[in-house]
Amino acid sequence: MNKKYVENVRKHNPLIHNITNYVTANDVANVLLACGASPIMADDYEEVEDITSICNALNINIGTLNNRTIKSMLRAGKKSNELKHITVFDPVGAGASKLRTETAKHFISEINFDAIKGNISEINAIFKGTNTTNGVDANMNDIITEENKQEKISFIKKIAQKTNSIIIVTGAIDIVSNGEKTFLIRNGRKEMKSITGIGCQLSALIAAFISANPNCKLEAASYALIMMGIAGELAWTQMDASDGNVSYRQKIIDCIYNMTDEIIKKEANYEIR
Amino acid sequence: MNKKYVENVRKHNPLIHNITNYVTANDVANVLLACGASPIMADDYEEVEDITSICNALNINIGTLNNRTIKSMLRAGKKSNELKHITVFDPVGAGASKLRTETAKHFISEINFDAIKGNISEINAIFKGTNTTNGVDANMNDIITEENKQEKISFIKKIAQKTNSIIIVTGAIDIVSNGEKTFLIRNGRKEMKSITGIGCQLSALIAAFISANPNCKLEAASYALIMMGIAGELAWTQMDASDGNVSYRQKIIDCIYNMTDEIIKKEANYEIR
Amino acid sequence: MNKKYVENVRKHNPLIHNITNYVTANDVANVLLACGASPIMADDYEEVEDITSICNALNINIGTLNNRTIKSMLRAGKKSNELKHITVFDPVGAGASKLRTETAKHFISEINFDAIKGNISEINAIFKGTNTTNGVDANMNDIITEENKQEKISFIKKIAQKTNSIIIVTGAIDIVSNGEKTFLIRNGRKEMKSITGIGCQLSALIAAFISANPNCKLEAASYALIMMGIAGELAWTQMDASDGNVSYRQKIIDCIYNMTDEIIKKEANYEIR
Repeated sequence: MNKKYVENVRKHNPLIHNITNYVTANDVANVLLACGASPIMADDYEEVEDITSICNALNINIGTLNNRTIKSMLRAGKKSNELKHITVFDPVGAGASKLRTETAKHFISEINFDAIKGNISEINAIFKGTNTTNGVDANMNDIITEENKQEKISFIKKIAQKTNSIIIVTGAIDIVSNGEKTFLIRNGRKEMKSITGIGCQLSALIAAFISANPNCKLEAASYALIMMGIAGELAWTQMDASDGNVSYRQKIIDCIYNMTDEIIKKEANYEIR
Repeated sequence: MNKKYVENVRKHNPLIHNITNYVTANDVANVLLACGASPIMADDYEEVEDITSICNALNINIGTLNNRTIKSMLRAGKKSNELKHITVFDPVGAGASKLRTETAKHFISEINFDAIKGNISEINAIFKGTNTTNGVDANMNDIITEENKQEKISFIKKIAQKTNSIIIVTGAIDIVSNGEKTFLIRNGRKEMKSITGIGCQLSALIAAFISANPNCKLEAASYALIMMGIAGELAWTQMDASDGNVSYRQKIIDCIYNMTDEIIKKEANYEIR
Repeated sequence: MNKKYVENVRKHNPLIHNITNYVTANDVANVLLACGASPIMADDYEEVEDITSICNALNINIGTLNNRTIKSMLRAGKKSNELKHITVFDPVGAGASKLRTETAKHFISEINFDAIKGNISEINAIFKGTNTTNGVDANMNDIITEENKQEKISFIKKIAQKTNSIIIVTGAIDIVSNGEKTFLIRNGRKEMKSITGIGCQLSALIAAFISANPNCKLEAASYALIMMGIAGELAWTQMDASDGNVSYRQKIIDCIYNMTDEIIKKEANYEIR
């Protein structure tokens, strides 16, 4: 991880087309700006091809999907593939409703994603057919731990091989695999779960990092997760007694605004399998 | 009020299905997380029954209603009733447009709400047929004061009896009534009106508190209001000279993140009629 | 600029109907409250005429336009014209897609806007037919500088004359013209570009300032820009080493909450041509 991943994002300023949910869209836009990328949100069927065409990457997030935006996502995804742009998928809440699970499966069968990021319950829902998602959070029984990590790694590697995508599963330990090489990342804090939208921010950052570092996609995606984890750690050290989850959210994005490759090199906590 | 209402929310971690507006959805999600509940936002007609089914409560907010989401709200509300889940309604802006007033009335005739929360102008628009709403804010002439409170209480009790719902009317004095017992709450500060979405956060909190304290719904709903009011008071003591309404918004949610039943017991300012 | 523009907003408390994007709607609502106005967001075709009718101004922003909301915007705009209400247009991303450019042109041909605010690439896309928009940001080659400002001023004056609108072009130097008189504003900081939604906030503020100061529309619009620029300058002096773009966003809105005509008089940096 000696490359200048963050520096590259700031230098190339990739423009990211987000078709995303209305709950966290503002945070997604600000975190992209914080890391040196630029956001555009556009979800009308008539314009998504135009917007995807002028962007460096497309980030599809089904957090508040609806009949109208599903069609737009599919169209944008196909255009992004046609143009060989970076295409990232965040199947928020897959497993929580038939619509989400079926839509996620359909997208994966129709669009080639460079990266698919979910929590373990979402990934299970799509690839195992289980149905344990706790709303938009992972079910506790699915969580990746030191004890079960070997089994989870094998599972995730197989999905990566099958889909030809980088598979990113977030949790106490984050796993990032392209089917050959796998990163296990231990940065981050459990308190980050008390903030809405960290996952949505992450998929946008993954799109930005891969766009700006296209020759090492797996490392770039891993780096985005490591950076977010480190931001969560550093931001926590700045918390006062009266601060809560909303201050924490703000401090995390601020940390990303001030993030450098040097900080990441120093604080990164990962292993490669 | 000796029960452990906040503790119960943190222990039971109720999952709240919000069909809400895009203006304040992020704050609603974060305030639910702050108090120990979990949010999910989902508004497509095809999935609302699935989502409501896995949740503990449904919170319907018509702040940015549209033709598509109105159908989803109605479907979700009926499913929530069928499953005997907690169902809360926030008729944002009723009185400001025919669509809002008619939709609110229609929902109340078709769905059994455990709680309906509005400002006095919204409640008047629905139940009196008056049309004094000042956008999404209460008309000054309608405001509940020490002078007119007795008349307002009678009115609100009657609505509660008629609808078989807990009626919550926010204002300088908040009134919460199930038709038999009525809470008058004096916590909170007038500066909270300079923040968008305090009301939206409140209806979500009411859903969470009733879900986690199902055997004392009136007290739980009142407690949610008392807690929000206290958060507004405590957050105000932390304001610096350069702080404004956005800092205040953040400090209030942070206060809720750090809220305990002990703080509430100490700071609560209410009477029971 | 000796008028009490801010004081008038706080005194008259204009109600602003925003049909705007879901990315920055929360910031738009809070900045309106910060300056003493009140926001309402409503975008359903069935209610926009009702809502516009009870408001003092309509602010149309196409940041996340779609087929449904385009129809609502058009209907609301015509109603606003009919009622002689203040009507403001923010053609976000014009030039980035055919839909945005065509929609913006269509609105300008069908609705009389008191003010149209964009970056130079958006204004070029609509009035010159060029296509250089970089997503929702201005293309660097289009930027207004000390060197090319004379040419830009002539161009903007002509558009103002042709459309009979106040044309506001934001950039390192902001230009505000009604075709006769032109303000060149040098308040603000380049770091404001690292925050999503400053432009969206600005068009809402312009609507509020013109509404509360209807007899000097050009000055009122210019004043909104000067105020936002000063807020950006003052907020920057309050930034700590660990702060980033999200803290900056918050401090700017907080500065507007605490803004007075006296501060603006002291800090304003503009010339009139």
